[in-house]
Amino acid sequence: YPGTFAPQPAATDPMWGYFTAIAGQDGEIDAEELQRCLTQSGFSGSYTPFSLETCRIMIAMLDRDMTGKMGFNEFKELFTSLNGWKQNFMMFDQDRSGTVEPHEMSQAIGSMGYRVSPATLNGVIKRYSKAGRIYFDDYVACCVKLRSMTDSFRRRDTMQQGSVMFQYDDFIQCTMAI
Amino acid sequence: YPGTFAPQPAATDPMWGYFTAIAGQDGEIDAEELQRCLTQSGFSGSYTPFSLETCRIMIAMLDRDMTGKMGFNEFKELFTSLNGWKQNFMMFDQDRSGTVEPHEMSQAIGSMGYRVSPATLNGVIKRYSKAGRIYFDDYVACCVKLRSMTDSFRRRDTMQQGSVMFQYDDFIQCTMAI
Ligand SMILES: [Ca+2]
Ligand SMILES: [Ca+2]
Ligand SMILES: [Ca+2]
Repeated sequence: YPGTFAPQPAATDPMWGYFTAIAGQDGEIDAEELQRCLTQSGFSGSYTPFSLETCRIMIAMLDRDMTGKMGFNEFKELFTSLNGWKQNFMMFDQDRSGTVEPHEMSQAIGSMGYRVSPATLNGVIKRYSKAGRIYFDDYVACCVKLRSMTDSFRRRDTMQQGSVMFQYDDFIQCTMAI
Repeated sequence: YPGTFAPQPAATDPMWGYFTAIAGQDGEIDAEELQRCLTQSGFSGSYTPFSLETCRIMIAMLDRDMTGKMGFNEFKELFTSLNGWKQNFMMFDQDRSGTVEPHEMSQAIGSMGYRVSPATLNGVIKRYSKAGRIYFDDYVACCVKLRSMTDSFRRRDTMQQGSVMFQYDDFIQCTMAI
């Protein structure tokens, strides 16, 4: 009854019908289904549409059971993140050129709370630039990867010492997924 | 004079003219120049052409000074690796469908000398599959990334103990580049 804090059952959630239509028979969303859905919904607007590669890492970011697919809750979680990143990007891209400059990207990463050395920051920004500017698709890919890698690191850094011991197999599993 | 082991001077190397033509004014090859060169040279043949993303990680694999560009020696090194991977791929793709099957990919990774757990191997293969098959571009992306990540790990595992202590900044620098 009203007033409880029980989570809304999926079937009455307004996004449920949308999710099931995209997910198809297997009831989960893979990278190609996600790309189609993001393109058809016009999520990127006038910005560059998402590449399949970016859709793959979006799924990997949330895919703890390594099936390469997304369930309903991950799907909603992804949209929340995507909306945040899009707002952030639009805030920096004030002239609506569809790109942000390296120094704006640097501010954006800082404002998300990541603390890395100037050399690392420069390397990251150069990696996601095209002719010295950062397009929306690459911006999101960078945000997704930075969050995933930081999550992977933190999950292992249980004592919060800022350093983690990796076994080879674990290192490959966690870095190759993204 | 003949018989010495001095490296051939770049200017007399048959690939030098080709390199300088692609590299342009700055004398180095970036990801977009590499993509153009690989497309125009018809390297992929009837296979899927290389995505910009794959070209970026090809450069990152060899780019120790983190400029995002490749000099002449790296360029030659890349072609040697690419030829090897292409031969390998063609060996497995005997029906010339342009794709290899997951179990063939698994054999290919094993034959390159990587030793990872079945769970990791499965995760890696799923990550680079499209509708259950692996296309040439993704095959190469997977080989590039696997080699880069293994190199990064080995460079830090100086005692060859199979485990490495990573600081957060170093972890981000090495994983975000690829
Ligand atoms: Ca599906
Ligand atoms: Ca999953
Ligand atoms: Ca360089």
